[in-house]
Amino acid sequence: MTIPGLPMTVPAANLPARVRIHEVGARDGLQNEKTTVPTPVKAEFVRRLASAGLTTIEATSFVHPKWVPQLADAEQLFPLVRDLSELSDLGVALPVLVPNERGLDRALALGARQVAVFASATESFAKANLNRTVDEALAMFEPVVSRARAENVSVRGYLSMCFGDPWEGPVPVGQVVRVCRALLDMGCDELSLGDTIGVATPGHVRRLLTELNETDVPTSTLAVHFHDTYGQALANTYAALEHGVTTVDASAGGLGGCPFARSATGNLATEDLVWMLQGLGIETGVDLTGLVATSTWMADRLGRPSPSRTVRALSHKDSQGSQASQDSQEQ
Amino acid sequence: MTIPGLPMTVPAANLPARVRIHEVGARDGLQNEKTTVPTPVKAEFVRRLASAGLTTIEATSFVHPKWVPQLADAEQLFPLVRDLSELSDLGVALPVLVPNERGLDRALALGARQVAVFASATESFAKANLNRTVDEALAMFEPVVSRARAENVSVRGYLSMCFGDPWEGPVPVGQVVRVCRALLDMGCDELSLGDTIGVATPGHVRRLLTELNETDVPTSTLAVHFHDTYGQALANTYAALEHGVTTVDASAGGLGGCPFARSATGNLATEDLVWMLQGLGIETGVDLTGLVATSTWMADRLGRPSPSRTVRALSHKDSQGSQASQDSQEQ
Repeated sequence: MTIPGLPMTVPAANLPARVRIHEVGARDGLQNEKTTVPTPVKAEFVRRLASAGLTTIEATSFVHPKWVPQLADAEQLFPLVRDLSELSDLGVALPVLVPNERGLDRALALGARQVAVFASATESFAKANLNRTVDEALAMFEPVVSRARAENVSVRGYLSMCFGDPWEGPVPVGQVVRVCRALLDMGCDELSLGDTIGVATPGHVRRLLTELNETDVPTSTLAVHFHDTYGQALANTYAALEHGVTTVDASAGGLGGCPFARSATGNLATEDLVWMLQGLGIETGVDLTGLVATSTWMADRLGRPSPSRTVRALSHKDSQGSQASQDSQEQ
Repeated sequence: MTIPGLPMTVPAANLPARVRIHEVGARDGLQNEKTTVPTPVKAEFVRRLASAGLTTIEATSFVHPKWVPQLADAEQLFPLVRDLSELSDLGVALPVLVPNERGLDRALALGARQVAVFASATESFAKANLNRTVDEALAMFEPVVSRARAENVSVRGYLSMCFGDPWEGPVPVGQVVRVCRALLDMGCDELSLGDTIGVATPGHVRRLLTELNETDVPTSTLAVHFHDTYGQALANTYAALEHGVTTVDASAGGLGGCPFARSATGNLATEDLVWMLQGLGIETGVDLTGLVATSTWMADRLGRPSPSRTVRALSHKDSQGSQASQDSQEQ
């Protein structure tokens, strides 16, 4: 239920005037959902996200279908949404994930203009996810990045496990900085700092950002990608905004984390992020009502409620009186 | 599942060294749960919270049983836990809510040494919750506060709807400041700024705290009480810490908000708060493992999982390998 005038807009000092949301629901979200979504529904999802005002929508992944069966339809899906990037009035960026040169070939053949590679800050996760050492993975990405750049295709580098690793525990900040530096030196345009298991806290976020700056990585090339496993994602995002970060990854409706699984490790929900940014008076171009409607629609397709608290609050269908009478028990 | 060494402790500049958590699960939490918990279970809950290191545990409410049937056993419960405040090695404060002089009489008769009154920042909520205007409610509290003070009993003033109201929408900051000032002038020792419907964002929090300071309300008398309706509670708490707030209200396991209700308006979960504070190197005295065990135990009594993300993550019973293999699908 929407309450007119809320959230109140009260800016805080020294925050960016505008934030670009990098919407990952259609890729990072759906690849972690148990339900496989039909291709036309995915296309409609991407279109609705664009209509809600999102300007960067990660569309799919050109990994081998064996590894991510939920996104095995990348070849079919991308042509269904590609025009969004060509319409001058929308001008939506539609990055796609490419794990290697083969993936890049497939993406380029379909006209992708933005791609992303995914590296790991830790040896354990590089081994588990890519069956390579960290440096072997970087070597695998090098031709992907240089060939993409040669075609004027921009490259985002995802970096997983920046704040902790399920096998290794703590991850030294210097180790993360080293891999970031390597990805930038290779030619990546943007880095997304991933808290894959959701363990980061705000001081840790600020420390990593500061150390990156000290090794000449400008904040303008950095995005943050938080998971809400321990409920920390939005507080971490706020700390990153205070540091000057202006690109934030989020997943519409919190897709990718099941609200009923005890191990829910979902992405930050785009709606929870937009609520905060709206309250802070930070422009995103996103229409929260339209976004909530899109996530509610997608939740119906998946057959379960959204884990986003904002989606649940705003899609509440009771009357204001009913909501208010419930609140009157709170003191 | 606990991962040794996580969260990493990385302090941020200019934050308090220590935070006192005002635990509201046994009162604000249970009064909003549908299940009525037997008195001995409540007493055991309070004892387990104390064992986990919480030093301020709001025990119950001496309102008329007709209004809050879940806490109708205040007379029976308080004597079962009172000794916690008398044991010198624990020295736990056990505040209780008192709506009026009759409630104060009942609380004092049982030996309560800390009480709390609950005021409203808005006329609509004062009317709905207390059937009075804001000023009539303040007048009702005046003898409660003065009599408590005369007996050397400390008084906390709760203030509801500080950041928005379900009937009125926006709540002017000046209106909140006025009621805060009145509560302090009346003799309250501490004020808890309540975001009863969870709509606050960090800039709004800082603005209210700043304006309170400008009218000579010192930050040391202030506590913050955030609800997670829109997922903002922890980000707001972080903003309050940056302002110097050192008392934070939270509810063990996020009690008071049902994870399956679309209208969940639960309190900030104590575990999510402790995770952040631990990462920031801020002392609380709380043992997170013991607290999670307590909330899991209580969730079993209530017959449903805890809405706290940290509780769900840490009470995950799968092996590390299983957790890790799930993470390997995240990129």
